[in-house]
Amino acid sequence: MTTISMYEASIPTFLHTLTSLKNILQKGIASAEARKFDSNVLASSRLFPDMFPLTRQVQIASDAAKGAAARLAGIEPPKFEDTETTLAELVTRIDRTVDFIKSVKPEQIDGSEDREIVLKTPRGELKFKGLVFLRHWALPNFFFHVTTTYNLLRHAGVEIGKQDFLGGSLLN
Amino acid sequence: MTTISMYEASIPTFLHTLTSLKNILQKGIASAEARKFDSNVLASSRLFPDMFPLTRQVQIASDAAKGAAARLAGIEPPKFEDTETTLAELVTRIDRTVDFIKSVKPEQIDGSEDREIVLKTPRGELKFKGLVFLRHWALPNFFFHVTTTYNLLRHAGVEIGKQDFLGGSLLN
Repeated sequence: MTTISMYEASIPTFLHTLTSLKNILQKGIASAEARKFDSNVLASSRLFPDMFPLTRQVQIASDAAKGAAARLAGIEPPKFEDTETTLAELVTRIDRTVDFIKSVKPEQIDGSEDREIVLKTPRGELKFKGLVFLRHWALPNFFFHVTTTYNLLRHAGVEIGKQDFLGGSLLN
Repeated sequence: MTTISMYEASIPTFLHTLTSLKNILQKGIASAEARKFDSNVLASSRLFPDMFPLTRQVQIASDAAKGAAARLAGIEPPKFEDTETTLAELVTRIDRTVDFIKSVKPEQIDGSEDREIVLKTPRGELKFKGLVFLRHWALPNFFFHVTTTYNLLRHAGVEIGKQDFLGGSLLN
C-alpha cells in the first residue's frame, strides 16, 4: 500500500480554492461596475440578518487556510487585522494568505497527522490530532466560508457558476 | 516521515459531514412544524431563480460522496433515482448514502492516489489521478452542496449555526 503526505492532503486544496475565491470576488467587482452600483454593497451583504456579511466570510476563509497551514506546521499563524471593507481589499487579503501558505514547506507539515493541535474557541479549548483537525475542522470551515461567499454573490445576481468555484483550469 | 492513507483522507470526512447534513435537514423539518408551514416549501427553495433548489443540492451532495467512495475504490457508484421531493425523503437518501460508503473498505481505497479516474461531464471527459480527484473535485463539490443546503435553510430562518455544520460532537 502506498500512502500520501499531510502536505499533499492539505496545502494544494487551500491554494487551489483561494485562487477560485479571488476570481469570484473579481467577478463581483466587475458585475457591480457593469450594473453601476458600488461593490461595497456586496461586501456588506448577508443571507440573513444575524449571519456574517461577505467581508467576514472571506476573512474567516483566510483565517481557516492560514491557521491550518500554520498549526499543522507547528508555528504561530500570522495575524491579519480584519479591517477590509471593500472587495478589492479582500482580494489583497487573499494574496497575502496565499503568500503565507506558500512559505510553509512540505517538511514542516509532513508527519503532522498525530501532532496535537489545541484551538481556543469561545466555547472552550479543542484538542485534535493533526489529521482529525484537517478533516473535521480546517477543511470544512474553509469550504463553508468560501461557498457562503459564492452564495452571497450568486444571490446578488453576480454571474458565476460552480465552475468558478471548482477552478476553471480543471475543464480547460 | 509518516504518512496517511487515502481512506483516512476521504471516507471519514464524507461520513462525518453527511451526519451533519442529516441533522440540519431534521432541524428544517422541526422548524417548519414549529412555524406551521409545509416543509416542502423549504425543499423547493432556491437562493436565486437559476440555481438548483434544496432538493437537488442534497442529491448532488449525496452523489459527490458516494461517487468519490466508489471511484476511488474502482467500482461503479450505485445509482439513486432523483425522486425525492420532501425533506424526510432526503434524510432517507442520506442514510442510504452512508450505508453505501460504509460498505467500502479501506483496502479498496488505499493506494488509489495514483489511480486514473475518468469523469464524464456535460463539458467533456475529465481525467484525474485519485488524489487530485479527491482534493480538487470530490471534496470541494461535496462541501459546496452541503454548505448551500445549510445556507438555504439559514436564509429561510431555520435556527441552525455553524456548529451544526461542523458537527456538534467536536465541542461537546
